Amino acid sequence: MNIHYPNGRKFMNQLSTSQTVKARKDPTYSNRGMTLEEDLNETNEFYLLNNIAVIHKKPTPVQIVEVNYPKRSAAVIKEAYFKQASTTDYNGVYKGKYIDFEAKETKNSTSFPLQNFHEHQIQHMEKVIQQDGICFVILRFSSTEEMFLLEAKQLLSYWERMKVGGRKSITKEELLSTAHPISLGFRPRIDYIKKIDCLYNL
Amino acid sequence: MNIHYPNGRKFMNQLSTSQTVKARKDPTYSNRGMTLEEDLNETNEFYLLNNIAVIHKKPTPVQIVEVNYPKRSAAVIKEAYFKQASTTDYNGVYKGKYIDFEAKETKNSTSFPLQNFHEHQIQHMEKVIQQDGICFVILRFSSTEEMFLLEAKQLLSYWERMKVGGRKSITKEELLSTAHPISLGFRPRIDYIKKIDCLYNL
Repeated sequence: MNIHYPNGRKFMNQLSTSQTVKARKDPTYSNRGMTLEEDLNETNEFYLLNNIAVIHKKPTPVQIVEVNYPKRSAAVIKEAYFKQASTTDYNGVYKGKYIDFEAKETKNSTSFPLQNFHEHQIQHMEKVIQQDGICFVILRFSSTEEMFLLEAKQLLSYWERMKVGGRKSITKEELLSTAHPISLGFRPRIDYIKKIDCLYNL
Repeated sequence: MNIHYPNGRKFMNQLSTSQTVKARKDPTYSNRGMTLEEDLNETNEFYLLNNIAVIHKKPTPVQIVEVNYPKRSAAVIKEAYFKQASTTDYNGVYKGKYIDFEAKETKNSTSFPLQNFHEHQIQHMEKVIQQDGICFVILRFSSTEEMFLLEAKQLLSYWERMKVGGRKSITKEELLSTAHPISLGFRPRIDYIKKIDCLYNL
């Protein structure tokens, strides 16, 4: 299971003993690259403010076990656990059409591991395609900052290949021929709607 | 702010002193009415299993402050707070179209209080309408089990009326003339997709 901080940054489990960690508050990103999620949040905000599209990241699903209600202040969740999401992380609407996607990064440089996705998400994508929703993934190679928009139907074919014993990743070459490169921009940072507009003649 | 248990049931703040409450685990609903949320979850599951539509409730947004990573077991959230949602609770896809709605119950019998909605949700509905999404609310009078599907554009007009000093609720008569009644069924419990299908000629 992937554990995420509230800002969606993945938790790297290198702690060997029980330890309590305070979640970071709004770090500044001035001197380093932003994560894919940060870039996408900025992009979605840009789309929202400029009436281009309404796309939101879904909240991290949490199983709440214990809540404390102190006198005269807000309820405090005292025990809760991260749950695995049953859908993709992002969805919304563009020109009346349903938009649905997942975004993943890898540190690999020559191929994108399929283990970044889990069975539930793949099943969700199949369902969305059945309902004629627009469904895709955004893949980023963090070492080179290369980014691709891969339509879900293509991802499903790579997933199928893996299930019948084939390779557990998508090679860069395969992405170059079956996915659509996206270059990092300024505003918006990741203009995936522009790609979707072209691909689907919207 | 509305506080919800993980199952979405609204927390009724009648505790006067600091108190810790364990969230209920799966009660049985045999001998009493189900909440609107429970009925909608069942409905959405029915739609999903029967390939009718893909609609999910969004997870409750939570601001995580402190996480404990015990040795050899799952991460435990030790401090977190409920956040106000910036969107509606339900969205998804039906025949390629974006579907977006909110569901609310009242104990009143003659009118539906507008305070059940908050400004953020109203703004979100405006944005969705601008993008040609299908947006509505499902309103239930819990005392009589009467239910209505009210299109968001209608809700917005009642909201506007309130903002210019008009009444703070929608009367039952107004709903009878501007909304669409939904009767409680067996499977699915609340067949809102059928209404949408008729209303939008899908």
